[in-house]
Amino acid sequence: MKKYLAEFFGTMFFVFIGTGTVVLGKGSPLMIALAFGLGISISAYAIGSISGAMVNPAVSLAMYINKRLSLTDTLWYIVAEILGAIAASGLLDLFLGLDKLPKTNFGQNDFTTLSAGGAFVVETVFSFLFIFVILMVTSEKYGNSQMAGFVIGLTLTLLILVGLKLTGVSVNPARSIGPALFAGGTALSHLWVFILAPCVGGILAAWCSKFLFGSED
Amino acid sequence: MKKYLAEFFGTMFFVFIGTGTVVLGKGSPLMIALAFGLGISISAYAIGSISGAMVNPAVSLAMYINKRLSLTDTLWYIVAEILGAIAASGLLDLFLGLDKLPKTNFGQNDFTTLSAGGAFVVETVFSFLFIFVILMVTSEKYGNSQMAGFVIGLTLTLLILVGLKLTGVSVNPARSIGPALFAGGTALSHLWVFILAPCVGGILAAWCSKFLFGSED
Amino acid sequence: MKKYLAEFFGTMFFVFIGTGTVVLGKGSPLMIALAFGLGISISAYAIGSISGAMVNPAVSLAMYINKRLSLTDTLWYIVAEILGAIAASGLLDLFLGLDKLPKTNFGQNDFTTLSAGGAFVVETVFSFLFIFVILMVTSEKYGNSQMAGFVIGLTLTLLILVGLKLTGVSVNPARSIGPALFAGGTALSHLWVFILAPCVGGILAAWCSKFLFGSED
Amino acid sequence: MKKYLAEFFGTMFFVFIGTGTVVLGKGSPLMIALAFGLGISISAYAIGSISGAMVNPAVSLAMYINKRLSLTDTLWYIVAEILGAIAASGLLDLFLGLDKLPKTNFGQNDFTTLSAGGAFVVETVFSFLFIFVILMVTSEKYGNSQMAGFVIGLTLTLLILVGLKLTGVSVNPARSIGPALFAGGTALSHLWVFILAPCVGGILAAWCSKFLFGSED
Repeated sequence: MKKYLAEFFGTMFFVFIGTGTVVLGKGSPLMIALAFGLGISISAYAIGSISGAMVNPAVSLAMYINKRLSLTDTLWYIVAEILGAIAASGLLDLFLGLDKLPKTNFGQNDFTTLSAGGAFVVETVFSFLFIFVILMVTSEKYGNSQMAGFVIGLTLTLLILVGLKLTGVSVNPARSIGPALFAGGTALSHLWVFILAPCVGGILAAWCSKFLFGSED
Repeated sequence: MKKYLAEFFGTMFFVFIGTGTVVLGKGSPLMIALAFGLGISISAYAIGSISGAMVNPAVSLAMYINKRLSLTDTLWYIVAEILGAIAASGLLDLFLGLDKLPKTNFGQNDFTTLSAGGAFVVETVFSFLFIFVILMVTSEKYGNSQMAGFVIGLTLTLLILVGLKLTGVSVNPARSIGPALFAGGTALSHLWVFILAPCVGGILAAWCSKFLFGSED
Repeated sequence: MKKYLAEFFGTMFFVFIGTGTVVLGKGSPLMIALAFGLGISISAYAIGSISGAMVNPAVSLAMYINKRLSLTDTLWYIVAEILGAIAASGLLDLFLGLDKLPKTNFGQNDFTTLSAGGAFVVETVFSFLFIFVILMVTSEKYGNSQMAGFVIGLTLTLLILVGLKLTGVSVNPARSIGPALFAGGTALSHLWVFILAPCVGGILAAWCSKFLFGSED
Repeated sequence: MKKYLAEFFGTMFFVFIGTGTVVLGKGSPLMIALAFGLGISISAYAIGSISGAMVNPAVSLAMYINKRLSLTDTLWYIVAEILGAIAASGLLDLFLGLDKLPKTNFGQNDFTTLSAGGAFVVETVFSFLFIFVILMVTSEKYGNSQMAGFVIGLTLTLLILVGLKLTGVSVNPARSIGPALFAGGTALSHLWVFILAPCVGGILAAWCSKFLFGSED
């Protein structure tokens, strides 16, 4: 039970920090990239020893595929992560109300210059790179448990430096679902891209780390 | 005795670095967030093995609630932390005088767009998140003593990225008292928010880490 | 075989992150410096325990000179690194197409204010400094295996802060070859500078670390 | 002999990176603060296990006072550090010539808004804070050898965020001597401030860490 709560809390923390920096902090691209990335790092160090701090359904799926997480845990993790992201957007909604700001921007993921197919490819590639690094750096064989939290977080930071203007770089269905439910509009109608693409990227990363690099031996 | 001196010195260091970056360095939001955050990290590595480097009365209170600090130490820590923050603002006052700059801005916390109640909610939530991370990452059961200093400091950095425009993100009564005594005005009349809210957040964090996550087992 | 694949993947990752931040992210100099530098750090932590994550032919050459890498491995590493960089530029090409952006800027290295001889000196000095740090921090005698990944990456970050306007700071033949093949023009006719100078710098660094500091004892 | 060479090389590296970011990179205050700070961190990890990577005569003096360095080593370290800083400015001079840039700015320390007495106070306080952190984090009793390099470097980063506009934050006689010899003018006539103040700050830090905190027990 404690580990599901940890996933809830960790996802809430990182989604609130990331989207809060976009919306309340009106952050520059560097600030936004650091906020999402280091938000994951902090979650990893705070609750990682309880639940692994995956804070991302696509990561939990990849962990399941590579047999690091049971089916029951995978399902409950995904539920907890999505609820955590929704809670983060709810907290942002509260703060917007307290500061009398318009409730239109919740840091939702979307794309305007790309087609849906283009966005799908971009999110799949980013998710593959992100989750491949996660699987390697947390593997028993190749991993570095001391530094893994910062390595994983900064990987997301780097991907956001590259792709912020394209799709916002979700690579995480929960991180997209929470804000989209509050923002509505195209964030909601495009949401399927940000749910499916990270899962495809995660599955590819799981196979790649396992069969090409032997991360699960 | 040495540990009270360490709390004094650590708080002076981090408050001087943070408010100095605001006032003397005219820092950007990212610079300010890094200055306060990494200022705490440096204190943690410099004097953490003497006193724990809490440098924050609300953290000392939470440590007392979770029985990591005796009542006597808690009281003296709080005194030392407040005196350290006052010394930091005094040092800033000296530098402003040497550079012939106006003595109006001491990096004080305040709010203009929020009501007092709104600011109270915001500071309570930020303090809860901050002190919860501290309690987890310094716990014997879940902690990481090697990285804790950077994890804690960067948590404050992230909260400032989100909330700098709202309240300045104090989450620390000492950090607000020092500058307010020198700046006066609304920083002084609003000071109760920045003293009480971090304590409420700290108490909630202590209970949450203890009863929900078993950090003190 | 796995280690050659690791060099391919690691080089692809870091070149894609770095050049992607230039081209797709339109990054500031600080963002670009962090992207290339931390891109190497992430590669080091993700695949370092498989292949050493050199991701740079000039580094592999220096490792060969100091007898840390066999001749066969050195040659295959260099092939894999160059192919990885080409793949990175190919991926960037795909993303530019998806976003309907012009395919002229691939983050290629070049120089306009310097002569070819001047650029050669600059790249040789930077490569010497970079590869000297790498050889020291990964040596058995003086090294720090836990932190080496971040130390090496941030060294590149610092060199880019200094020299971005001069040559783009390649210090890596693979990182220059990939983008130049896609960009063409002077990036291609100047390419010999970015292939030879890092090798000269690497050879000097290998001798300096070995004979002056005894890194291989 | 090797350790004196290490101090020479380490000081050259960090002064070249820091002043190069100012002059060639035309860096923002954040970039400059990161360049000087992380430049020291890299030196610490690259050559720290040979010489301690003090790269600063005022630090060597403080280490001598606290009996961590012999008199002979202290004197040779100081000579090597000053020569290293001069070599760094010579390298910068070469690069300025190659890029046909005017040879007036070498990243020298100076003050315009402060009096000499005011600058002396500012540099003494900054040097005290900097060297106190160094002495604590490298002490056998309280230190953290794994993280010390980044802690020390980021301390300088923070001090530069505060005081860049006041004196440039030297806290290091060698770092001021090298550029002043090339720049001349008031950088040379004010040089005594940047030589004496760091030494006063270093002596105070040595006493404070020893007698107040027992760092040498």
